[in-house]
Amino acid sequence: MKILIVNPNSTDAMTRDIGRTAERVASAGTEIVAVTAAGSTPSIESFVEDVVASAETVSTVLNMPGGFDAVVSACAYDPAVYALREALDVPVIGILEAASLVSRLLAPSFSVVTVLPRGVVHVEDVLTRTGLDRKCKSVIGVELGVLDLERRREESLQALQSACDEAVHGDGAEAVVLGCAGMSYYKSRLSSMLDVPLIDGVECAVGLAELCLRSGLSTSKHQTFAPLVPKEIAATEEGPGPNPLLSLLYGASSSSSNV
Amino acid sequence: MKILIVNPNSTDAMTRDIGRTAERVASAGTEIVAVTAAGSTPSIESFVEDVVASAETVSTVLNMPGGFDAVVSACAYDPAVYALREALDVPVIGILEAASLVSRLLAPSFSVVTVLPRGVVHVEDVLTRTGLDRKCKSVIGVELGVLDLERRREESLQALQSACDEAVHGDGAEAVVLGCAGMSYYKSRLSSMLDVPLIDGVECAVGLAELCLRSGLSTSKHQTFAPLVPKEIAATEEGPGPNPLLSLLYGASSSSSNV
Amino acid sequence: MKILIVNPNSTDAMTRDIGRTAERVASAGTEIVAVTAAGSTPSIESFVEDVVASAETVSTVLNMPGGFDAVVSACAYDPAVYALREALDVPVIGILEAASLVSRLLAPSFSVVTVLPRGVVHVEDVLTRTGLDRKCKSVIGVELGVLDLERRREESLQALQSACDEAVHGDGAEAVVLGCAGMSYYKSRLSSMLDVPLIDGVECAVGLAELCLRSGLSTSKHQTFAPLVPKEIAATEEGPGPNPLLSLLYGASSSSSNV
Amino acid sequence: MKILIVNPNSTDAMTRDIGRTAERVASAGTEIVAVTAAGSTPSIESFVEDVVASAETVSTVLNMPGGFDAVVSACAYDPAVYALREALDVPVIGILEAASLVSRLLAPSFSVVTVLPRGVVHVEDVLTRTGLDRKCKSVIGVELGVLDLERRREESLQALQSACDEAVHGDGAEAVVLGCAGMSYYKSRLSSMLDVPLIDGVECAVGLAELCLRSGLSTSKHQTFAPLVPKEIAATEEGPGPNPLLSLLYGASSSSSNV
Amino acid sequence: MKILIVNPNSTDAMTRDIGRTAERVASAGTEIVAVTAAGSTPSIESFVEDVVASAETVSTVLNMPGGFDAVVSACAYDPAVYALREALDVPVIGILEAASLVSRLLAPSFSVVTVLPRGVVHVEDVLTRTGLDRKCKSVIGVELGVLDLERRREESLQALQSACDEAVHGDGAEAVVLGCAGMSYYKSRLSSMLDVPLIDGVECAVGLAELCLRSGLSTSKHQTFAPLVPKEIAATEEGPGPNPLLSLLYGASSSSSNV
Amino acid sequence: MKILIVNPNSTDAMTRDIGRTAERVASAGTEIVAVTAAGSTPSIESFVEDVVASAETVSTVLNMPGGFDAVVSACAYDPAVYALREALDVPVIGILEAASLVSRLLAPSFSVVTVLPRGVVHVEDVLTRTGLDRKCKSVIGVELGVLDLERRREESLQALQSACDEAVHGDGAEAVVLGCAGMSYYKSRLSSMLDVPLIDGVECAVGLAELCLRSGLSTSKHQTFAPLVPKEIAATEEGPGPNPLLSLLYGASSSSSNV
Repeated sequence: MKILIVNPNSTDAMTRDIGRTAERVASAGTEIVAVTAAGSTPSIESFVEDVVASAETVSTVLNMPGGFDAVVSACAYDPAVYALREALDVPVIGILEAASLVSRLLAPSFSVVTVLPRGVVHVEDVLTRTGLDRKCKSVIGVELGVLDLERRREESLQALQSACDEAVHGDGAEAVVLGCAGMSYYKSRLSSMLDVPLIDGVECAVGLAELCLRSGLSTSKHQTFAPLVPKEIAATEEGPGPNPLLSLLYGASSSSSNV
Repeated sequence: MKILIVNPNSTDAMTRDIGRTAERVASAGTEIVAVTAAGSTPSIESFVEDVVASAETVSTVLNMPGGFDAVVSACAYDPAVYALREALDVPVIGILEAASLVSRLLAPSFSVVTVLPRGVVHVEDVLTRTGLDRKCKSVIGVELGVLDLERRREESLQALQSACDEAVHGDGAEAVVLGCAGMSYYKSRLSSMLDVPLIDGVECAVGLAELCLRSGLSTSKHQTFAPLVPKEIAATEEGPGPNPLLSLLYGASSSSSNV
Repeated sequence: MKILIVNPNSTDAMTRDIGRTAERVASAGTEIVAVTAAGSTPSIESFVEDVVASAETVSTVLNMPGGFDAVVSACAYDPAVYALREALDVPVIGILEAASLVSRLLAPSFSVVTVLPRGVVHVEDVLTRTGLDRKCKSVIGVELGVLDLERRREESLQALQSACDEAVHGDGAEAVVLGCAGMSYYKSRLSSMLDVPLIDGVECAVGLAELCLRSGLSTSKHQTFAPLVPKEIAATEEGPGPNPLLSLLYGASSSSSNV
Repeated sequence: MKILIVNPNSTDAMTRDIGRTAERVASAGTEIVAVTAAGSTPSIESFVEDVVASAETVSTVLNMPGGFDAVVSACAYDPAVYALREALDVPVIGILEAASLVSRLLAPSFSVVTVLPRGVVHVEDVLTRTGLDRKCKSVIGVELGVLDLERRREESLQALQSACDEAVHGDGAEAVVLGCAGMSYYKSRLSSMLDVPLIDGVECAVGLAELCLRSGLSTSKHQTFAPLVPKEIAATEEGPGPNPLLSLLYGASSSSSNV
Repeated sequence: MKILIVNPNSTDAMTRDIGRTAERVASAGTEIVAVTAAGSTPSIESFVEDVVASAETVSTVLNMPGGFDAVVSACAYDPAVYALREALDVPVIGILEAASLVSRLLAPSFSVVTVLPRGVVHVEDVLTRTGLDRKCKSVIGVELGVLDLERRREESLQALQSACDEAVHGDGAEAVVLGCAGMSYYKSRLSSMLDVPLIDGVECAVGLAELCLRSGLSTSKHQTFAPLVPKEIAATEEGPGPNPLLSLLYGASSSSSNV
Repeated sequence: MKILIVNPNSTDAMTRDIGRTAERVASAGTEIVAVTAAGSTPSIESFVEDVVASAETVSTVLNMPGGFDAVVSACAYDPAVYALREALDVPVIGILEAASLVSRLLAPSFSVVTVLPRGVVHVEDVLTRTGLDRKCKSVIGVELGVLDLERRREESLQALQSACDEAVHGDGAEAVVLGCAGMSYYKSRLSSMLDVPLIDGVECAVGLAELCLRSGLSTSKHQTFAPLVPKEIAATEEGPGPNPLLSLLYGASSSSSNV
């Protein structure tokens, strides 16, 4: 089986890290393909960047030559996960939902440690959509951006350790979800400092993708995620023209009227 | 005061209807500017179309010459509302949140009547984010697309009336929120058939925008919606290049490295 | 349009302040009439005083000569709001529900700063009824009575500022609702000290009343707030006789048996 | 021990029924005193009548010569319960909270059968305040007023039986709470028709009052229900004068300025 | 009436204390029978010990000669309460549910003080099942085992007082539920140190059992707690043989095939 | 890796079916060991049978010679899962939690189809503990016992299909969780009749166990599931003696005083 992991930001170094993490836990016979949403922002730290990243993630995936069996959106805001569930037939998994779901097997409650505090509400929204908000003791943002995780290693480690301590000893969490794909690097060192499970979303998403494929499970196409009905895109005389995603979504024929 | 109302889909006829509705309830001295997100999909009926519409809505608003005092996103999935709260200093209001908030003053509970059943979960997500999900008795989707509301008038009226009846007499709602900007056309005829308040989001959004402006209230910039920090966009050698929204978000200087 | 604002306590000085606040935000053409529930307690700081204030508020409003288009109950316990929705045809708005609903447009969460800590549960009850309790980070009571807000200005300002700081920096609120009609006086000074929106219920209630009137919306009379059916009041031979509100509610004819 | 049961409406026949029900379950040595809130409405079926009834209930209780050890408010809207908890030192119990709390020992969920459908929201509010709303499968209003329960016996029995059936077989409740003090009359006949526990609030309130007294438990006076601080009531030159409850609440001395 | 109180752990000294507490609050004419689940663990401080204690509690009760009218499970994890509701016709009451239900009459919220912190989640589970979790401000575990409460009196008193203080002044609880049957000993001394009600589950369970019996209420046998249908137990050739509880549950005839 | 799957009931035929299901989805290199809790009841359809089954499940697992890397409790009431998390170091997974967690990746909501209606509350309790109750549209019990699933094939298939239809078309679920280990047999035939994912707990539990092991994740031993402290078991002179599980839990030395 072949799992496509898309990094919704444009930072190739992160894509490579994500790919390595995925390969480490994939079972024999699973092929990992990690791609970058090249047109996206270098890091997703706001709702408006999530808008850009979601569009670029959908575009990246739909432009991929086919043949993959599952897709992972490797950012803790789970960008484009619902959109891709509509657009594809294969299972689509976000890393935050993956890690928080797995946490339920390991501890009575969890916390999420994420990057900038401005993203706390975004993480909470994803947890609420997944249905796990009441089991989450806290979402803690550290004063580091996504890219700082790659640039400021020692400072990041200390900030993450401190946030994990707060989650466990202050907020009563008995497991910690790493709330950014860029945190995998720190997992083993953090784990050795903590006495609760540290859960990485990329790892969990790969495992859950394999589980779905082995059990023959995929997205429910019954209603909410049913395939799109193609629409005719009217030509516009001025302005930048229709969003290029539309022809990907509706197919060439439907958007031919656009010419 | 000047209120910018953006129609997140690309259907100009709907933009004109929305503009007329807004002008009808605006107070003296309020100027309504209604614009179409021209590059968007003709109608937003899925999560993936919401991704496109959100990007085009942000782009449309950020490309507008300034001078407006508030922005309304005139689609019941409230696309781009959180994103625009980050990108702008003026109040930003979605029509579904507007109508459902106003409903709390009129009845102990409400239902939402929306278009295709596949959108029910999307509406529920917006209500949950607003915080009003527990006061919503039901979200009812009728088997009509957004554009059917313009094309199949009599059938639409009957379907909407039937859904409203179900909301009130089946589900116990004591007010009904119209869950699509295209339903304003039917409001007066439906109202005469029902004995509960029928609440239109465009009307409510205009009133709430005026309220915010008269009271000097705007988006909290404290944390979640704080302004973006510009980021440098690396040039990409192949592929379609960075998403054009990025230079709008980070400013020309930051994306100059993109050339 | 004419908006009747009733101060549910008997302190005329507060009524005048409330009236001034309302006039400041009312749009051109709106007439504000502020009245005192003269038979009420000087300040409402308990459930039992709320019982008295509710009775006097209903009595004051029902004894007003008609002609008003909306009613605002200007106390943060929203006294008599549900009762007046039954007794009247025009929209009825409480200031706490008004401010907390508006807060949803401005920030992902809010706190309420109110007077004596004994009232915290009362405020929470109103938020729960409105449906917004889960979006409220905290309700903070300061050790000041309602009337202290008028008598001890400097001390009040400091206590309010300290409570707002606690709400924002301790509890994570990104907007603050002023939980007492007597706090309007401090709004501009507090605002200059804080970097989150400070939301005044009287202002919001006026704006929401205007919105309802411009959109032709009023209380749902479908079931919960349906008009009362008159009842016959039996004459009592001893004791203080029937509560004088009863003849107001049921009309002269129905209570004529009382003579 | 002596338990004061106040009927918050003015219908003496109901008071007598309530008293009889209470005496039937009281243990040896418990004295039941049942009184009518004589100035109240003959039946409480709306929020505005609850305002009147609450005031008259407080007045009736505070005017009683002392010596009672607990107070029961015998109406399913639990009128004045919070107010009396402030005004008194002895335990105060509402019949709806009493019955719904006891139901938790008997079945995994319950429904409430109450009178007019307009009161359903009122019952739900009481359950929410008690904290049991999520365990309540439904609140069913029958098309009968409070006084119909005394006047239309056979019709009432059938309507109640039908509502109980709907609760159990339609909504999945495994116990039924009688949501009106006037329903005790039907309890034994209804019980013989049903196979789930039928729970009467007057009975439960008496038992809970005895429990509190035997265990030395009474209302927490720590904060929310702390005693009132007396306030000075200013004389008013015109109008009907201060509400007579105020001198009961603040004592003669504090209201002496009222002369 | 005769109330059987079973101590789900094997410590006879606790059984005697529990019996004394029960007798102190029982009304005249109530006979208290306190028994020990002799085969159980000496103290229940984990989920796995709860498995053992539940089995032994069921066994102890089903092996009792009949004649009792209600059963109390006297451990704050409420072991076997649901199981006994199926197996018996008489009311079955857990002490934690009893105390937390009674707390609702006394204060707007409560906290539970229990023994080892590892049991906090267990207490929370019981509160959730009862339906009162949202009214519970905190569950505080002290660093003492169940048996320490008997062995280390002074240290226990200080730890409990400190936890109660934290509940009231830190967490805002206005009543405290004692979360272990072994805490009754401290109730009067703790009460004199606190100004909120201190609620003992054994006392409340006895009072609630009396209430149920006086009102003719018992467990709903409609569905969830319906009597068991006997099953045939197949003989096993090796291993320790069928669990001895099975013949108690299904009766001698059904398990006769076991020989 | 070696996964121990324990069937908490005593029916060997079910154990074999469960083992086959597990082997079908296990990845290469995973060894499945399926064992029967031989002393248990033939089927678990009540809370009191769950007490027996939990004890026998713990006993069966603790008596197994070691060497397994994860444990699955293969009954939809998830018996002994929390207990085994304390007693073991390896991951422990219940099949209902497993299936309902996986459902979150596939659809916006799910229903559970289970056996006898009396078990609905039991399933709901497990979902609540997992944290997913709000995403569950309904738990539907069919009028079939666990063993009927093996004995009455055609009738079972029809009843399950009918329940699945009700879940999807009546309750709005977009995925269905099979709420009994004995339902695996019907999965492929049911799947061909439905257009929503049908999720089997045994399959999901195996996949989640593999995921945990590949990612090095196991139960949090921080607090709630920390290892037990051994206790001394006092000898009892009469009665059946201490529960045999105690010596397994505390070790031979601690229970040596038992001789």
